[in-house]
Amino acid sequence: MFQPTPHNTASTRPLTIVIVGGVAGGASAAARARRLNEQARIILIEKDHDVSFANCGLPYYIGGEITDRNKLLVATPQKFREWFNIDVRTHQEVKSIDAGRKVVEIHERDTGKTYEESYDKLILSPGASPIVPPLEGVKSRNVFTLRNLADTDAIKACIDGDGAGTGAGGGGGEKAKKRNAVVIGAGFIGLEMVEMLHRRGMHISLVEMQPQVLPPLDREMARIVEGELEKHGVELHLGNGLKSLETAGELVTQVVLADETRLAADLVIMAIGVRPNVSLATAIGLELGKTGGIAVNEFMQTSAPDIYAVGDAVEYRHGVADMLMRVPLAGPANRAGRIAGEHAAVGQAPPMQAVLGTAIVRIFDKVAAVTGCNDRCNAMTGRKARSVWVPANDHASYYPGAKEMLVKLIYDPETNRVIGAQIVGGPGVDKRIDVIATTIRFGGTVEDLTSLDLAYAPPFSSAKDPVHMAGFVAENDLRELCAVTRPDAVEAMEPNVQVVDVRTASEWDAGHLDRATHIPLPELRQRMGELDPTRPVVTICRGGQRGYLAARILKQNSFADVSNMTGGMLLWNILEKSATATSRA
Amino acid sequence: MFQPTPHNTASTRPLTIVIVGGVAGGASAAARARRLNEQARIILIEKDHDVSFANCGLPYYIGGEITDRNKLLVATPQKFREWFNIDVRTHQEVKSIDAGRKVVEIHERDTGKTYEESYDKLILSPGASPIVPPLEGVKSRNVFTLRNLADTDAIKACIDGDGAGTGAGGGGGEKAKKRNAVVIGAGFIGLEMVEMLHRRGMHISLVEMQPQVLPPLDREMARIVEGELEKHGVELHLGNGLKSLETAGELVTQVVLADETRLAADLVIMAIGVRPNVSLATAIGLELGKTGGIAVNEFMQTSAPDIYAVGDAVEYRHGVADMLMRVPLAGPANRAGRIAGEHAAVGQAPPMQAVLGTAIVRIFDKVAAVTGCNDRCNAMTGRKARSVWVPANDHASYYPGAKEMLVKLIYDPETNRVIGAQIVGGPGVDKRIDVIATTIRFGGTVEDLTSLDLAYAPPFSSAKDPVHMAGFVAENDLRELCAVTRPDAVEAMEPNVQVVDVRTASEWDAGHLDRATHIPLPELRQRMGELDPTRPVVTICRGGQRGYLAARILKQNSFADVSNMTGGMLLWNILEKSATATSRA
Repeated sequence: MFQPTPHNTASTRPLTIVIVGGVAGGASAAARARRLNEQARIILIEKDHDVSFANCGLPYYIGGEITDRNKLLVATPQKFREWFNIDVRTHQEVKSIDAGRKVVEIHERDTGKTYEESYDKLILSPGASPIVPPLEGVKSRNVFTLRNLADTDAIKACIDGDGAGTGAGGGGGEKAKKRNAVVIGAGFIGLEMVEMLHRRGMHISLVEMQPQVLPPLDREMARIVEGELEKHGVELHLGNGLKSLETAGELVTQVVLADETRLAADLVIMAIGVRPNVSLATAIGLELGKTGGIAVNEFMQTSAPDIYAVGDAVEYRHGVADMLMRVPLAGPANRAGRIAGEHAAVGQAPPMQAVLGTAIVRIFDKVAAVTGCNDRCNAMTGRKARSVWVPANDHASYYPGAKEMLVKLIYDPETNRVIGAQIVGGPGVDKRIDVIATTIRFGGTVEDLTSLDLAYAPPFSSAKDPVHMAGFVAENDLRELCAVTRPDAVEAMEPNVQVVDVRTASEWDAGHLDRATHIPLPELRQRMGELDPTRPVVTICRGGQRGYLAARILKQNSFADVSNMTGGMLLWNILEKSATATSRA
Repeated sequence: MFQPTPHNTASTRPLTIVIVGGVAGGASAAARARRLNEQARIILIEKDHDVSFANCGLPYYIGGEITDRNKLLVATPQKFREWFNIDVRTHQEVKSIDAGRKVVEIHERDTGKTYEESYDKLILSPGASPIVPPLEGVKSRNVFTLRNLADTDAIKACIDGDGAGTGAGGGGGEKAKKRNAVVIGAGFIGLEMVEMLHRRGMHISLVEMQPQVLPPLDREMARIVEGELEKHGVELHLGNGLKSLETAGELVTQVVLADETRLAADLVIMAIGVRPNVSLATAIGLELGKTGGIAVNEFMQTSAPDIYAVGDAVEYRHGVADMLMRVPLAGPANRAGRIAGEHAAVGQAPPMQAVLGTAIVRIFDKVAAVTGCNDRCNAMTGRKARSVWVPANDHASYYPGAKEMLVKLIYDPETNRVIGAQIVGGPGVDKRIDVIATTIRFGGTVEDLTSLDLAYAPPFSSAKDPVHMAGFVAENDLRELCAVTRPDAVEAMEPNVQVVDVRTASEWDAGHLDRATHIPLPELRQRMGELDPTRPVVTICRGGQRGYLAARILKQNSFADVSNMTGGMLLWNILEKSATATSRA
């Protein structure tokens, strides 16, 4: 492995590294640059008050899970100065770059003055800004986005009721009445805000243009999350857009949706998404990618010499889709910052690895996580993909507290490689998504999943971990031991297809498909004469395991066309609710 | 991928597969064989009452965490019959094998009769038996091993006080007095029993021949577990053997150790280890490996045609050590059973993958986990290895409830590959050991660890996960950005080595090395003149992070020989206590 040697300028003047923006990778870049090059002048310019704060913690402070605001300040300007000897300049904004002279123009917000600073290496970490639709009323005192501490304080003040946000529903003497929050956008931040506003006792309407929450998940997996939201009284308005805001004075009182639904609002959170801050970059003609993010190479270098860019404003290579994408997540931003800082400081660095879009969110008692490519991504890239849905407990079912999760495993039938996964459940979802993300990173196959040597003791897992189980089911599909059929395809199948439910009588009685025939698994070998081996058969059980065994029995008894309904009645019920919800909408 | 076709016998007679023993892989083999070959006759011979039970759950039932005994019966004979059409014969024991005639001799325990059964394929899953030292008194009514449900019931009865186990300490009218348990052996089962007996209100003495608990862990990591045991009042007798047992009637009353320590005993648990049950195998000359386990190939075939062996009685290839080892763990047993069952049923199967010895155990509020090779394993194989110790929180420190874990990462400095890890901490230890085990499985390097795309949200992780942090520190070592020194080497260093503690004044005041000089990190750049750049320097902080930065500062200011004390005072304190404990012993 190479060993860096600080490459200072040819003259005796030390290398000057200017970093624009502390959040989303800038602070990481600064710290890494210093560790690699003690002699460099390192200047960190930040237009706000805080150079580095816990972006991902903001909803939890608003909700009251994090009670000490100081905890959000993960690295103060003082620490950057004392530990890293970094010249931190807050309340200052880089207004322009002169790439030819290698100079930035800096505006001091406190004094209104402007001055120039030279750089040898420039690292841009401009981040991204929340998208705010151009509607009348969006500047009202009770309409917020959530990106920084100032936003956080304002939202908190509004909820706490000191002045702002006493519109339609609450405030004043009406403490008993629930105040109404409208959250626009059901992505990660939107959902975290929903939970936290619920925690603060508000009634919440969640509005999302897509027909589902959490667009990184496929629809049926998102449906589980929707069920959890509904269980907690959250009003869902999916496949519905924001049309207008009605105001009274400085406050929004009603949110009007595309379908004319009117939602009372004491507080509106805009969490539609973010737009990369590329104005500095475009002003000097830095190349942008198709996604609108700044184009960079594997060392985070832009199209201009000696200018790097990191964080939410750039494009990353997606390791499975093999496409450039914007990935506004903290993990990649931190890693990119580290690489840019090192490369700027010493002229070389390990290359940035492709990202997988691995992400996770807690929504009340559920956890939803995703990695790699989902159905939409596979459709976009034209990649053939197959999926299985596998329910499994987070730990040994005989040990108290086991909770079921549903794993959707997506794989390439040509290479057998794992290309994506989505998991919704409770405890232990984070572990399984990380293990699968690690497998994907190394190009691992479905068979690799089945044989990972994972840690097992009853409080933590099962001898057959959910990751193994998902691998087993996918392997059976790939090896054509058992074909799988999606539950939503079963209802629409030709009448000659025989649908056989092999669950117990009590499970059957609790609900089943109208067209199904009931033959409990223990009776199948004796009663298979009731079925026609020349006609196709789909087997069904609760989660897929007994259905698989039933399919194997029939297949080996001269039934020509047998498949198992993947995910069983568990997945069928989820999809059924999804369909019902859509037809209601 | 190949598609199996059932390969039944040439004649019209179906293939007969006989499986000897349900636990430790036999049940998995039976179920897999049936799924692959519906026509085969599958016979499962089990000498005990239960074909498949939750071995790993037994301690938790004894301790009362699992309250329903039925939960331990994960797959009943009835299920094997009804679902899998398997001919289950319990209370029957295979006494001998005639490999020439392909016949087993079976003894019916209930009738005392013996009969023969032919096989086409034979799968041996004999498991392993607890080692019991040949001492007088070991057959006493209050001395137990823990391997099956009968053992479990007996131990539970003894604790519950109905008859047995009312020796020296308790029973009768002396309910107020704590009863004394002596656990011999501090491996996984020994430690689980310690926690569970403590939960039942007993005073526990833990005796271990090795100078540490949990021999799969390196000594300093095991020391953290020892601290947790001591905190709960467990009396540790390490590096001490069992000499004799003193009895009164049918009960042991005192356990006498090699150093003549006498321990009062109402209950003695022998958890010294297990010995593979190879008598059937050796009787017909099946090849054994050096470890005493049955030698098998990647399809679990023994040296005799048509005889397979799986579970705790066989040897597995260790993926890092590249040696054959016995690995009496449920995970490999299950996977091996699946492969043997498939291969026996259809003549081919995916090969068994090497194991990594990944294991985990909860001890009170701590969790200890291991994967790959430890120091002893590396010494044995002569592999060069380096280690770093990295403390890190399980999730974002600003989010409530963050708990620190200590990660020991072991890697090969020639290939940069990760070759092992040990983690002791609380929540989230299981996730990190699984991610590292997955990385090792794919031959991943230290740099790979730094760039894994793991899921981050405040309740689950940090943008820089403990896995990333461990990778960073190891990478810095490999790239010679910062040499590391083990804390236990610092005290013994030549007097000319300058030891610099860069922590804050309050941290320094709370305890420091006698020979250290105190220069807080923020003052180091100004005060480095107090140090001699021609003499070696070791930097110290709490966990290694500030020490690393200090080392970088000095190294880049013409200090010729600088290293950082890995793991910082955190690890130093652990090792110090370890040394004290040893000198006390």
